Amino acid sequence: MMRRIRLIISYDGTAYVGWQTQPNGVSIQETIEHALSSVTKEHIVLHGSGRTDSGVHAFAQVAHFDTEARMPADKIAIATNMFLPPDIRILFSEECSMEFHSRFSSKRKEYRYRIHIGTHSDVFSRNTALQLHHIPDFCILNDAARELIGEHDFHAFMSSGTSIDYTVRTIYKSEWIKEGQYLVYCVCGNGFLYNMVRIMVGTMLEIAFGNLPFTAISSAFSSGERSDLGPTAPAKGLALYRVIYDDFDTSEVLSHG
Amino acid sequence: MMRRIRLIISYDGTAYVGWQTQPNGVSIQETIEHALSSVTKEHIVLHGSGRTDSGVHAFAQVAHFDTEARMPADKIAIATNMFLPPDIRILFSEECSMEFHSRFSSKRKEYRYRIHIGTHSDVFSRNTALQLHHIPDFCILNDAARELIGEHDFHAFMSSGTSIDYTVRTIYKSEWIKEGQYLVYCVCGNGFLYNMVRIMVGTMLEIAFGNLPFTAISSAFSSGERSDLGPTAPAKGLALYRVIYDDFDTSEVLSHG
Repeated sequence: MMRRIRLIISYDGTAYVGWQTQPNGVSIQETIEHALSSVTKEHIVLHGSGRTDSGVHAFAQVAHFDTEARMPADKIAIATNMFLPPDIRILFSEECSMEFHSRFSSKRKEYRYRIHIGTHSDVFSRNTALQLHHIPDFCILNDAARELIGEHDFHAFMSSGTSIDYTVRTIYKSEWIKEGQYLVYCVCGNGFLYNMVRIMVGTMLEIAFGNLPFTAISSAFSSGERSDLGPTAPAKGLALYRVIYDDFDTSEVLSHG
Repeated sequence: MMRRIRLIISYDGTAYVGWQTQPNGVSIQETIEHALSSVTKEHIVLHGSGRTDSGVHAFAQVAHFDTEARMPADKIAIATNMFLPPDIRILFSEECSMEFHSRFSSKRKEYRYRIHIGTHSDVFSRNTALQLHHIPDFCILNDAARELIGEHDFHAFMSSGTSIDYTVRTIYKSEWIKEGQYLVYCVCGNGFLYNMVRIMVGTMLEIAFGNLPFTAISSAFSSGERSDLGPTAPAKGLALYRVIYDDFDTSEVLSHG
């Protein structure tokens, strides 16, 4: 009997071309598909809640696949981890409804972007945080972050050349917090365009350093022009932190968030 | 004119054979010596405060070298970092007395040993923390840690086969703290024998899991026998955290600790 299994997956994206399988290197998706195929003895196709770029990480990516294998669903995580490299771990596995779709059923996603502030780079977060040697103005960062909250046309906040019809998204949470030597941007929305979070971060930093006017964000909402905004912040600072569905929330399962 | 320069160095030890230069791979010492030689145009010999094993990390290793190069001492860190791989950073450089010796002048050292507790391993700390799936008894860990405080003959707490005459050391601080999903052992002493911290950790864990009697530590102080103690805990959880001299304290310079 065919069953649908959903997974929560954590990965360090440094060594991969990104979530999605591509011709030019090893993807996280194919690495997990191979491991699941070894465990189930079936050809497994895995569907993620969304792509993450090369170098982007995940505390909690959600993915699902269908299988006829009879193994108890909660054992699939442990069994599959034995076939996975140490930079990818399945944290949770369970059977779900055949109606559940990791991408189309998702209601909200939260990303975090981490910046290490120090005279010198930090060796331990060199692959998981942007390394800055000067402190951006924290109040201005949070003023800019608040500008992003609400329903807006984020057309300007995606890489030029991307073709997508509907670019209106709603941002529910957008704030910077301090964690020791780190500044962490927490953003939750009903969906994100390609490179949207990284362009938000690159723009807020330029505003906080005084290189862009505070009005850049509202101007870009009106104009829809990518050129009104700051650069795309480096991938390594970004991590998918949480995915929320009507009946499933990764942070509740992992008890963080 | 010959000057002596002291450095504070941080490194992720994962990719190295350890601090000390050895025939079978790349050491942290030689990597920094090559970078310093490029900057000073001299053949530089670097003296560390002590060795760290392969896979052991440092938040603050201290080392010194002599040079006739005229560059301002505080610029040496930035200049040398340009020649270093991203897993090694010089955090601080300054001129010091020719009497200063990073190893022989040191008065106290602090190490930290980090354990991640979780059903599954954590991808982000896979190289910098021991990954445990069961929780050791936290009270027993700290009871065992207190047994180690004071002046003792730590002969049993070194790898068998090590030849060293004087094995009495004084431990000033020995405690476990909780940091989110991590247990962190903090130990400060006037010196440490080869593998001493890792044997302490391996022994405390065995006691906390009920696999060794609580009296194992006091027995080992009396017997001097390595076999009375637990296994040597894996290198990756260990980091040199602080080195203290009469007139120089890495934690004061870096403002942590």
